[in-house]
Amino acid sequence: MRSTPHAETFPAHTPAAAQVFTAVLSHGPLTRLEAGRRTGLSPAAVTKAVRPLLASGYLVEGGGPEEGGTAGEARPALGRPAGLVRVNGERALFAGVKATGDELIAVLTDLCCRVRLARRAPLPDRAAGPALAALTDLVHELLAHAAESNAPVAGLGIAVSGDVDRAEGVVRYSPFLDWRDVPLAELAATACGLPVTVDNDVRALTVAEQWFGAGAGLSDFALVTVGAGIGCGLVVHGRVVAGAHGVAGEIGHLVADPAGPLCHCGNRGCVEAIAGDAAIAARIREVTGRDVPDSAAAVALAHQGVPGAREVYARAGEAIGRGIATVANLLGPERVIISGEGLAAYDLFAEQIRQAFTTAAFGSAARCDVQTRPLPFEEWARGAAATAIQTFITHGTGSGKG
Amino acid sequence: MRSTPHAETFPAHTPAAAQVFTAVLSHGPLTRLEAGRRTGLSPAAVTKAVRPLLASGYLVEGGGPEEGGTAGEARPALGRPAGLVRVNGERALFAGVKATGDELIAVLTDLCCRVRLARRAPLPDRAAGPALAALTDLVHELLAHAAESNAPVAGLGIAVSGDVDRAEGVVRYSPFLDWRDVPLAELAATACGLPVTVDNDVRALTVAEQWFGAGAGLSDFALVTVGAGIGCGLVVHGRVVAGAHGVAGEIGHLVADPAGPLCHCGNRGCVEAIAGDAAIAARIREVTGRDVPDSAAAVALAHQGVPGAREVYARAGEAIGRGIATVANLLGPERVIISGEGLAAYDLFAEQIRQAFTTAAFGSAARCDVQTRPLPFEEWARGAAATAIQTFITHGTGSGKG
Ligand SMILES: [Zn+2]
Ligand SMILES: [Zn+2]
Repeated sequence: MRSTPHAETFPAHTPAAAQVFTAVLSHGPLTRLEAGRRTGLSPAAVTKAVRPLLASGYLVEGGGPEEGGTAGEARPALGRPAGLVRVNGERALFAGVKATGDELIAVLTDLCCRVRLARRAPLPDRAAGPALAALTDLVHELLAHAAESNAPVAGLGIAVSGDVDRAEGVVRYSPFLDWRDVPLAELAATACGLPVTVDNDVRALTVAEQWFGAGAGLSDFALVTVGAGIGCGLVVHGRVVAGAHGVAGEIGHLVADPAGPLCHCGNRGCVEAIAGDAAIAARIREVTGRDVPDSAAAVALAHQGVPGAREVYARAGEAIGRGIATVANLLGPERVIISGEGLAAYDLFAEQIRQAFTTAAFGSAARCDVQTRPLPFEEWARGAAATAIQTFITHGTGSGKG
Repeated sequence: MRSTPHAETFPAHTPAAAQVFTAVLSHGPLTRLEAGRRTGLSPAAVTKAVRPLLASGYLVEGGGPEEGGTAGEARPALGRPAGLVRVNGERALFAGVKATGDELIAVLTDLCCRVRLARRAPLPDRAAGPALAALTDLVHELLAHAAESNAPVAGLGIAVSGDVDRAEGVVRYSPFLDWRDVPLAELAATACGLPVTVDNDVRALTVAEQWFGAGAGLSDFALVTVGAGIGCGLVVHGRVVAGAHGVAGEIGHLVADPAGPLCHCGNRGCVEAIAGDAAIAARIREVTGRDVPDSAAAVALAHQGVPGAREVYARAGEAIGRGIATVANLLGPERVIISGEGLAAYDLFAEQIRQAFTTAAFGSAARCDVQTRPLPFEEWARGAAATAIQTFITHGTGSGKG
């Protein structure tokens, strides 16, 4: 039964209910007063939004033991513990999957997006059919685990790199998976028996960072991911930027050097064509004449001091720093979080990133707080689960479509 | 009396009241139902917000004759004319001033931001003291005209290019005026006897475009201005982006060519260092050996076919197009509006702008609607008045501070 689509529904799919629920989810437990302050809603509107959520068990009264001590101890300034509401994590479960070019990373989370279980599976064949089969197997593993608890699984989120149309549930183009126009939400919903939300992987991770990570409490921040691709998730005015046509945050295809190497997008000198894993490995191969099978080998050559290898990383750092400065000059975020598997090489280009950023940032834009934060792929999968939770609380069911 | 600061106050400075008022201002007359739909507020919240605005005369019932015919004729689908509310333009007046490096452009508007009077005055000395004196004279001219009506002047907006801290009312750095850390809001409030809002000129124009221009009804658009500087106003999720540290939309200092000419910001190859008026004139002087006193002379040389001059415009167009593509790749706006006094030369670089944009736009970002729109400086001054109206309805008085 718990695998029937739309079996579980959120009681009140009004904007106010979603806002209040999200505020309590990321900052809770909260008093109604504080929930009102954080959402800009009147006390009456908060009370009205909270009532059906309490009645249906999605929110519960009180601070709860898992928030560290009694509510009164934890937040003495907020008044009577009875005034606090928090999300009832046990009420529903969600699955989240991040797909890389050669692996699937999956997590089962509760309604508070706390990870209950994490699993990885190799992706030997990245064509859509076999990948979907592997994904389905992995999700069923999570569902089997979930069956041991009483909570229904209310949605599945899938995070894929590239141009993803979340509203339509379609992967328009994913270079690393080599997919074009794959109606993934529909296919996965049928295969897994769950409502499905599909989103760009960096945007999904950005949701997790906004709710629970280094972006919590900030209305404007950027998440820049370095690795196979160079991605960017943007939060402006408290919401993730999706782009009118599904494209946003394409920092990887900003031109850092018009005379630079050719990019797979057709332009020259894109940030990704200079600082993406494949670009760095190819360039080190070129300048050192050595065999560079993967990023680990590239990092090793640079660390060994093989002539020319460090310069490749320096140039990559400069391109990334310039990309970050571009984001800062256009949007003036409070913070830029650098993450991604490319952080493994961070010591090799940290200095150039910072220097290029400082040089290219205009005026007070340089005051932006640039920080690094390692986020393993399980965090990306958690981001996918967060998008499923988001869909669930905004659409009333776990389906991202419509 | 009408020149006493804080004499006129908006009755309800709640977020809901400001939202409803703004919706009616830019889309009105509206029914309460439609106002609710546009703001996401409940019918009860709209009714509550509207009541004090009607009682104090800022809103009135009915479509009103100036919206073209009777309300019933104009919007038959919206139900009974009595259900419509509209802004009472006569209720208050606002002044708006745009300062360029050598001129002040001022307008007097009503509460609907309709221009009642426009005046220009030369700015022979751009130092802060003399400029403030010239501004005060010009505003007093507007106030004298306003005194002939019954409506109070409730605020003054001043739009200045550069790094402007609206919340503090301070011009941090304006290259064209050569001002640093001028507390303009306070100085002008004392001199003119009005509550003052100071904002970056492109952001002010963006507010006018969002409320009444080519951005009306769009939640995500960009306004790119070409001329002395290359500026950009961004609306994301329905609100103008201001930047956490006051810097945003600095498209002029995106690096279009790292090997390009030195910019006043210290970097090489900024869009402004290639495509700003002064940069184009300097480069044409260099390649043609002719005297190029101003932009008009530069345009004339290119139109006359003087060898090399057209190529300078072509390169400028390429830099602008690349800057616009950067905005599209990061934010995916629905529309980019190109304006500014540089449109006088638009035939000389339109093709290159479009071509560079199309080449550098990533995937569906190229579907962004790029259009041009001439906006004389009076529109910029109107934008300044719009910021004063904005302050008035959000802060309850016309003062931008706090
Ligand atoms: Zn590219
Ligand atoms: Zn510059």
